[in-house]
Amino acid sequence: MTITGEMLIGSARVRGKEGMFRAIDPSSGKELEPAFGEGGPAEVDQACALAWAAFDAFRETGFEPRARLLEEIAQRILDIGDELIERATSETGLPRGRVEGERARTVGQLRLFAEVVREGSWVEARIDPALPDRTPLPRPDLRLRMVPLGPVAVFGASNFPLAFSVAGGDTASALAAGCPVVVKAHPAHPGTSELVGRAVQAAVADCGLPEGIFSLLFGAGIEIGGRLVADPRIKAVGFTGSRRGGLALMEISARRPEPIPVFAEMSSINPVFILPAALASRGQEIGKDLVGSLTMGAGQFCTNPGLLLAQPGQGLDGFVSAASGAITSGPSATMLTSGIFAAYQAGVDRLERHPKVEALARGQIGAGGNQGRSVLFATDAETFRSDPVLKEEVFGASSLLVRCRDIHDMRSLAEELEGQLTITLQMDPEDLDSARILLPTLERKAGRILVNGFPTGVEVAHAMVHGGPFPATSDSRMTSVGTLAIRRFLRPVCYQSFPGPLLPEPVRDGNPLHLWRRIDGKLARE
Amino acid sequence: MTITGEMLIGSARVRGKEGMFRAIDPSSGKELEPAFGEGGPAEVDQACALAWAAFDAFRETGFEPRARLLEEIAQRILDIGDELIERATSETGLPRGRVEGERARTVGQLRLFAEVVREGSWVEARIDPALPDRTPLPRPDLRLRMVPLGPVAVFGASNFPLAFSVAGGDTASALAAGCPVVVKAHPAHPGTSELVGRAVQAAVADCGLPEGIFSLLFGAGIEIGGRLVADPRIKAVGFTGSRRGGLALMEISARRPEPIPVFAEMSSINPVFILPAALASRGQEIGKDLVGSLTMGAGQFCTNPGLLLAQPGQGLDGFVSAASGAITSGPSATMLTSGIFAAYQAGVDRLERHPKVEALARGQIGAGGNQGRSVLFATDAETFRSDPVLKEEVFGASSLLVRCRDIHDMRSLAEELEGQLTITLQMDPEDLDSARILLPTLERKAGRILVNGFPTGVEVAHAMVHGGPFPATSDSRMTSVGTLAIRRFLRPVCYQSFPGPLLPEPVRDGNPLHLWRRIDGKLARE
Repeated sequence: MTITGEMLIGSARVRGKEGMFRAIDPSSGKELEPAFGEGGPAEVDQACALAWAAFDAFRETGFEPRARLLEEIAQRILDIGDELIERATSETGLPRGRVEGERARTVGQLRLFAEVVREGSWVEARIDPALPDRTPLPRPDLRLRMVPLGPVAVFGASNFPLAFSVAGGDTASALAAGCPVVVKAHPAHPGTSELVGRAVQAAVADCGLPEGIFSLLFGAGIEIGGRLVADPRIKAVGFTGSRRGGLALMEISARRPEPIPVFAEMSSINPVFILPAALASRGQEIGKDLVGSLTMGAGQFCTNPGLLLAQPGQGLDGFVSAASGAITSGPSATMLTSGIFAAYQAGVDRLERHPKVEALARGQIGAGGNQGRSVLFATDAETFRSDPVLKEEVFGASSLLVRCRDIHDMRSLAEELEGQLTITLQMDPEDLDSARILLPTLERKAGRILVNGFPTGVEVAHAMVHGGPFPATSDSRMTSVGTLAIRRFLRPVCYQSFPGPLLPEPVRDGNPLHLWRRIDGKLARE
Repeated sequence: MTITGEMLIGSARVRGKEGMFRAIDPSSGKELEPAFGEGGPAEVDQACALAWAAFDAFRETGFEPRARLLEEIAQRILDIGDELIERATSETGLPRGRVEGERARTVGQLRLFAEVVREGSWVEARIDPALPDRTPLPRPDLRLRMVPLGPVAVFGASNFPLAFSVAGGDTASALAAGCPVVVKAHPAHPGTSELVGRAVQAAVADCGLPEGIFSLLFGAGIEIGGRLVADPRIKAVGFTGSRRGGLALMEISARRPEPIPVFAEMSSINPVFILPAALASRGQEIGKDLVGSLTMGAGQFCTNPGLLLAQPGQGLDGFVSAASGAITSGPSATMLTSGIFAAYQAGVDRLERHPKVEALARGQIGAGGNQGRSVLFATDAETFRSDPVLKEEVFGASSLLVRCRDIHDMRSLAEELEGQLTITLQMDPEDLDSARILLPTLERKAGRILVNGFPTGVEVAHAMVHGGPFPATSDSRMTSVGTLAIRRFLRPVCYQSFPGPLLPEPVRDGNPLHLWRRIDGKLARE
């Protein structure tokens, strides 16, 4: 497939005329062909108009056609073949194996949402039958189902060029819900975006669905995204990226005549609490494995372990020396963009200059551009407590070890943390009481709590939560990974005393879709 | 029970010293004893500190104790007896029968949430068992449950002194979720609020639960409510009231260092579409019954039918004459407060002065203060379309009939409406095709769609939605009435690879709570 640099607006390819940009290979700093034309107000308007026009028809497509669309998108992404892997590798500097794994995850995610659509519980059908003889007043027949919100603006994330991008979790869950999607491609991987976008566009056409359910816009700056979120036909937003970016979108939404839900996944330092018995028995092993999680993908994961908490005592020295050894011997890695690399360097410099923060180990410097060196810092609890800068995310392979006095010190530090995507406990069975002391705080602070694992590697599953209290996300009640992600884009409608022929299929008598439904409050499949 | 004018802060009674106010009997304009002391920053701080201190313990109470709390509150509200009915009647001008009905609804609502808590599906337990042999990577054990957000600020509404007030739907659903509640009493019914608040306070003590799970604050102005929403220990807001009030709370939340979910139910004109066959066959009956819904409770319902749409033709004259007759012969009714009465008068005056709006009928003027006269206005579709003022809510028994050319005119008018709590169809079987033309628009515009009913009279049930797109509410994905209301105050947490003893009970092996759970995506109760 030739990458053309054109946007996709419904079934058309449109060359943007507001400016142009090229992708950059971050390992060489070289520009990649072709040039991408940037869209402007006209293209936002066209994409939103098509999305809006498609919405009523798309939201009433049956479960089966909608599931087939998701499967067709998955297949067509696979069909692109090696070209996709190569382009994504060139645009991101990520290793081939990582990109292949991410493709598998992206395809699996689309197929999982196809299953979700078919199973149908996302409709949350409820029926309270009429009680005509109830006194003092009869009860009318009440039926509830979920309906999609409307067209969704999706922002591709730089660090997951497939799984959190054009056909990633936001798009998959929005389409599954019945929402048309307008994607603003991340300018760091426009070629990857175009390839995947064309797979989606072709799948929409193949399935005979309205062209407006998918468009893809390019823009190197922030204007086009802001305009998209402000468009009155957009009814929800999915975003994964920086805190500044997420806050900007939240503000644009709040200022709309009609505010809309923004799910922004923004920042997290993913604390790891290493409890005493585990530290004593497995300190070295934990240190080594943690560095593996820290440095994976140049540390550019939302769930990267940026904060380690441990108490001095047996095992801490072994932990530090193993972690330091792994850092020191580890190669540098190409970061996604020169901007991300510069921000990482600034974050590391800030810690290096901090009078009460010690650099325990620094990774190798390799050849090539934008080489992120991993770093392990250390400080004490008082310093960490007193300086808000130390609680900020440094996006990349930098982590800070905080030495805590005891478990109560750990808990009080946990209380001071902002909201997190994940918090991890490294613990042995003897640490159970300590874990119990921490757990209530951890539950209030994070969307996911792990035991003896590493926070990177987010499973796409039914029980996954990739969310958490602000500023991890803009709405802790939602998740952007896992099947519950569909809920971001649905709202309930109640149908009161509807005649049978006018009722939507999911809440009709006789349960024609064979759904799990709540009848008078009780789950039943009849 | 003597009404003291004191606030309730945890288990204490505290006299506010920031100022004082009295309730006013709106029918006589006379002040009612006693004086209520207004709280300030110190009391907000105390209530929030207690709520925060109580949160961790309260959220882990078992389902049974929490259900019993709700039932105990219900019983203690009933135990207040006639004093509550009399005080609420004096403070609101609402008829005794209406207040008694509202008490029954409030008590029923608390008992329904007790059932919801016991049934346990609100926990949304999900388990994805580990797949240690999966390739290329094993899957860890993942378990999900819903946890409460934290202390909730609840604002009593003037128009439902019991059902949307101190122990109304917001409080019931927040407590059911495991959230402590700090209520800002509506200054129009402080005595009713104190009586109910003391019932809640006593129930908390009886059940041996932490005192901080309930506090009640007084203030005649907006300062104390704003301060409450800005308090960092408050994690969600439930509000029913004016658009201006709701928008102000949304803005306070958005400006917090940590923004929080605000569910504000704000405004709705609840359009009623009278389709041609129904108009022809039942025009007179519909006209009479609609006026019954319009004038109930002096028209002071969130779901009051403020907009009627019909096509000229057979039946419209009969409809107009029956509705006009019912309006003209109907008595005036005491409105809740002089402020609401003044706003109603201003809204009616605005319509009366409108050159293209005709007053079809005006109700009687009765004796007493704050007497709202019902009014029926009429205009044509072009006028309605061109003047945004005509789409605004006039809170009270005023309704506007818009004459539409045909069903397509009706649909295009529906498209121009803002979000609504309800939209009603009056239809006969012959109107089915017309209804099908309207339905997609109505589903996008409203939280509840009724056929051949009247929007007032919101059932508290599993399938109810009292919500809708902005500005009906601040978040169309939620509802403030019905059992789904609990979702406003819950967020998911994922537990990854937890050892059995550390797992929360709802997601333990063996299903000790006998919950419906989603195992590997499939619902099961095992």
